[in-house]
Amino acid sequence: MTDIIAKKKNGEKLSEQQIRDLIDGYVNGDIPDYQMSALLMAIYFNGMDEDEIYILTDAMKNSGEVIDLTDIKGNKVDKHSSGGVGDKLSLTACPVAAAAGVKIAKMSGRGLGFTGGTIDKLESVPGFRTDIPMDEFKANVNEIGLSIISQSEEIAKADKMIYALRDVTSTVDVPALIASSIMSKKLAMGSDAVLLDVKYGDGALMKTKEDAENLAKLMIMIGEKNGKRTDALISDMDQPLGNCVGNSLEIAEAIKTLKGNGPEDMFKSTVEMAGRMIYLGGIAETVAEGERIAEEMISSGRAFEKFREFIIRQGGDVNVIDDISLLPVAAVKREIKGKDVGIIDKSQIRHISALAVGTASQICGAGRTKKGEKVDPGAGILLNKKAGDTVEPDDAIALLYASDEDKAQEAIYKLTNCWDYIKIK
Amino acid sequence: MTDIIAKKKNGEKLSEQQIRDLIDGYVNGDIPDYQMSALLMAIYFNGMDEDEIYILTDAMKNSGEVIDLTDIKGNKVDKHSSGGVGDKLSLTACPVAAAAGVKIAKMSGRGLGFTGGTIDKLESVPGFRTDIPMDEFKANVNEIGLSIISQSEEIAKADKMIYALRDVTSTVDVPALIASSIMSKKLAMGSDAVLLDVKYGDGALMKTKEDAENLAKLMIMIGEKNGKRTDALISDMDQPLGNCVGNSLEIAEAIKTLKGNGPEDMFKSTVEMAGRMIYLGGIAETVAEGERIAEEMISSGRAFEKFREFIIRQGGDVNVIDDISLLPVAAVKREIKGKDVGIIDKSQIRHISALAVGTASQICGAGRTKKGEKVDPGAGILLNKKAGDTVEPDDAIALLYASDEDKAQEAIYKLTNCWDYIKIK
Repeated sequence: MTDIIAKKKNGEKLSEQQIRDLIDGYVNGDIPDYQMSALLMAIYFNGMDEDEIYILTDAMKNSGEVIDLTDIKGNKVDKHSSGGVGDKLSLTACPVAAAAGVKIAKMSGRGLGFTGGTIDKLESVPGFRTDIPMDEFKANVNEIGLSIISQSEEIAKADKMIYALRDVTSTVDVPALIASSIMSKKLAMGSDAVLLDVKYGDGALMKTKEDAENLAKLMIMIGEKNGKRTDALISDMDQPLGNCVGNSLEIAEAIKTLKGNGPEDMFKSTVEMAGRMIYLGGIAETVAEGERIAEEMISSGRAFEKFREFIIRQGGDVNVIDDISLLPVAAVKREIKGKDVGIIDKSQIRHISALAVGTASQICGAGRTKKGEKVDPGAGILLNKKAGDTVEPDDAIALLYASDEDKAQEAIYKLTNCWDYIKIK
Repeated sequence: MTDIIAKKKNGEKLSEQQIRDLIDGYVNGDIPDYQMSALLMAIYFNGMDEDEIYILTDAMKNSGEVIDLTDIKGNKVDKHSSGGVGDKLSLTACPVAAAAGVKIAKMSGRGLGFTGGTIDKLESVPGFRTDIPMDEFKANVNEIGLSIISQSEEIAKADKMIYALRDVTSTVDVPALIASSIMSKKLAMGSDAVLLDVKYGDGALMKTKEDAENLAKLMIMIGEKNGKRTDALISDMDQPLGNCVGNSLEIAEAIKTLKGNGPEDMFKSTVEMAGRMIYLGGIAETVAEGERIAEEMISSGRAFEKFREFIIRQGGDVNVIDDISLLPVAAVKREIKGKDVGIIDKSQIRHISALAVGTASQICGAGRTKKGEKVDPGAGILLNKKAGDTVEPDDAIALLYASDEDKAQEAIYKLTNCWDYIKIK
């Protein structure tokens, strides 16, 4: 192992055997954390080439369970988002694509971050089960075209171990490691195609468009080399997506979007993503046709119907879906007015920091700061005004839902500092 | 800690507080190995500036016991060698300088390597004790001017821990870490001055003269900033020093050198080093004067007399010193002839690989490959011919002493491949 570290430190390429030995050795405990973390840091500085990344991904995929979806009829399409503030597209694009006939067998994470993961959001619907057995998961996909369950501990074991180590050794921001981490899990899930949503900007892991594009290229390379149709969307996460950031708040906004009355940006992003999933699933001949189908799924009500069916199948209380006012709400609610952020004349919002909104939402109780922490399903931020909107001092520009008064105060402080506006003459 | 790693990864300077927290946290177990090793690798790539290295050294020094030598009369001079094949200068230069009136209170290591450390070499003299109590150590220095004991576990604890980690994470060859490691121990030993012997070349840690000079500059900077007179010798370790590589073999050669009948290169290096120690100890006004005094100590017999006194004080059998044929000899002895290395006509030796001779010596049983292993005091290599010497096919060019027949065979194979010679017309 010391030789492997030295090789990468000196900028040399690791052999296939070395990479496989590395992953096997780490998973079975022969290679200690302190050697792996030194290697990860050397990879941060000297990178890995495409061959190395491809083999690393394959070795990580094979370090755990590999799901066989061949007995599910139709084209299975998976999606992955690199995450962003207010990103609830799994909750909208998946039902839209499933309504069009794509088969979606998806595992999602809880994760650390500004809000919980897709799994936490779904769990804000009372009764919804995210830990159903594999047989039931596959049967759901076969019968209604969609199931989303929580990430199994058995998938890509090496990735789970390495990710935990990267998190505490400042080696998260390494393209080779991000790409192999994401793709090892996607490949282990056994879908035929993968759509990647790579965000960049203030509230995302990739800070620039170029970084996002490079990461996407790496992941497409890995997918294609594995015989999977793989495509990527590169999207700006400079301000939050939609108006809602939180768990139940995002469920509510997803439902509005599926019913055709969500925010404009959510509608557009949903159609864009679902359209590509429909195309990758072979149901449309072109992406444009896929997008037309996606729009039709929403306007016809079939997308929302698919979402209801999906919620019911996994035990969720459908009354909450039909009446979103029944969704959980955090204990403390506060309204932020234009004047609270310093607006004293009629002004136009120029920018809202996604990072600051995300952080405020986390402070409210919507996100975790360490593994195993509970999230408050009803906590989060609702933005009434976004970039381009006109605001008067007395307008309510945001609503804040927090678990308690202290959290509310701290989040308000964060939130009132993230608005950039200009007076309108 | 993740922030500290990220900062160094991004090429930023660590603050004094961060470095002190780092060392404290690592020694008391709050910072795990895997974070330290990631940081060490980031330091490999981004280095540390002089302020950081100075503080790191100070923090490591203070992580363990700091010896107070103020009650010893006279100027205390310590020496350190970065190690090399056949380097036995501690055994010669220290008695020479002590004979001239310098006070030498030295701790030495056993170490891993081609032969044992100075401590292992001294222990090949039957009865010699390297673990005497601190009071006795100080009394010896006070009374006869010289004592050498084995490295205490209590000195620079952080260094010991970090060194063990560097060894298995390919972060040994980092100038900032080498300099702080060496100097933290030297500063903790409490001498007034330090002479450093930095080797470069084939058989040394530093491969080029430039690397050795840069390392020396760092260590001199640390020493001077701590108010210690600090100087360095930069020397080539391209072929072994002297003719002997091993433990008892090196004791024998040191004795010959102290009596004035050792190999030419040993004599010159001893005078050079002891001369500087005499100068640093304030006994000579110039290095040249120090070297003249050193030569006189050898020619007058006072240096050898000091060595005898030193051996007797620490319990060593003085008969062995007076008759080196009584020193331990390994079980198997083999002669290597010119023809064994391929010489078929009168030839001149151009080069002997120090690395290969060192490795052969280790194979014979003179060195350790892992901590705690025993060394064979009588194993090693005696070179009859070195670069520049003329050799006939039947000349004995080397003698090999090994613990057993298998080791001898393996070492002969190594040794016969390390001679570079040219036929003389």
